[in-house]
Amino acid sequence: MIFYVMKILLGSGGHTPTDRKRALVHEIQSFLGSTIERFLFIPYALQDWDYYAECFKELGLAAGYHLDSIHKAPDPKQAIASAEAIYIGGGNTNRLLSRLYEFDLVETVRERVRAGIPYIGLSAGSNVACPTTQTSNDMVIMVPPTFKALSLVPFQINPHYHDHPENPGLRAETRALRIQEYLEENPNETVVGMREGSVLRINDDNLTLGGNNGIRVFYGPEIGKQPEDFWPEDAISFLLK
Amino acid sequence: MIFYVMKILLGSGGHTPTDRKRALVHEIQSFLGSTIERFLFIPYALQDWDYYAECFKELGLAAGYHLDSIHKAPDPKQAIASAEAIYIGGGNTNRLLSRLYEFDLVETVRERVRAGIPYIGLSAGSNVACPTTQTSNDMVIMVPPTFKALSLVPFQINPHYHDHPENPGLRAETRALRIQEYLEENPNETVVGMREGSVLRINDDNLTLGGNNGIRVFYGPEIGKQPEDFWPEDAISFLLK
Repeated sequence: MIFYVMKILLGSGGHTPTDRKRALVHEIQSFLGSTIERFLFIPYALQDWDYYAECFKELGLAAGYHLDSIHKAPDPKQAIASAEAIYIGGGNTNRLLSRLYEFDLVETVRERVRAGIPYIGLSAGSNVACPTTQTSNDMVIMVPPTFKALSLVPFQINPHYHDHPENPGLRAETRALRIQEYLEENPNETVVGMREGSVLRINDDNLTLGGNNGIRVFYGPEIGKQPEDFWPEDAISFLLK
Repeated sequence: MIFYVMKILLGSGGHTPTDRKRALVHEIQSFLGSTIERFLFIPYALQDWDYYAECFKELGLAAGYHLDSIHKAPDPKQAIASAEAIYIGGGNTNRLLSRLYEFDLVETVRERVRAGIPYIGLSAGSNVACPTTQTSNDMVIMVPPTFKALSLVPFQINPHYHDHPENPGLRAETRALRIQEYLEENPNETVVGMREGSVLRINDDNLTLGGNNGIRVFYGPEIGKQPEDFWPEDAISFLLK
């Protein structure tokens, strides 16, 4: 009997600049290793799936692996059931979640990842790995049947986190303020603000951080801790508890 | 028999700088006139209702009228039924809509405004005046039972609209792109991007624009028109059709 452990790589997004893209490709290669040859790509966060899958390959984000896009598969559920690894790209999080429910894939993805196949998520793909997509920055361009998502990790993620005002006209409105408003209504929760280029690597109960920009972790008022910054090398596995 | 017409004033938000606040106060005074003495304030978009109502008065946003906050009323529904005017402040749109449903106020507000009492909305208060709150910029910190809102106007609003990149790490991601993604999934709709300090004045079938920054109107692909900028003095009543 083989004993599987959860293997998850979550990127903040913002990997387009050359140095960050190179770092991401390196992360993916370390993560997937050499025994895996191909992954199943889920392009549902954008509208044009052909364009997205092609673009993703051209940008080199497939990291040298063979990309099979789920929208080309005759049976998407079967494609997940037989995938070696799953890779969900960014775009609009609520569109992505809506499509996952529309094609009845939420349970199947969750089961496969819990059974040990590697999962890579970027931006929206990181949001759907959380208990809900409520800490996404995206508009609700589609209303999913529920905001409950894959629950592969026990905390919420805010991708593309940054410390600047959100809006040139509202100097006081920072991303931190938005996350604090979320925690007012969800006081037991933890939100991980992932700065551009950061990645979280999960290997069963071990969590480590990559990228140069670090993360800021916000705790709900019932947890009663001030926000904390973490950098690569810091011990952050406690977030999985 | 008195013949009522709908009277609605919607602000983008971003009215904090002194000149914009003065302009907003002037708009409110022109809009409510001198026969009205008080309005019912709805502070549900923030968590702390006492603080919000006090702060709103202190900032002068009550424009010289008497502010009765709905959270002080023994029966919120009755308070709406007897209000001379309704004024909904900004904050988190999805929290606001969730509370309006929680206290069963959506129908009552809609009926009263359709029957002719003046409605003022700022930011989140403008979002809830639309068919849905899906074009808000806010996180879904609470999930409302439905995103359907007051439908006082037939178009969607994106408050705090601006033309800059959304995020220092993602130069290409503008608000316009987010709105276009919304319209990909809602191709028959129209979204009015309200720049900071802009106001829409509705007097039955007449719509005019105030403020210095103008609006940008985005049309869904089935309408087939390029985005258009409008400024005060421009004829925009066609948006109510």
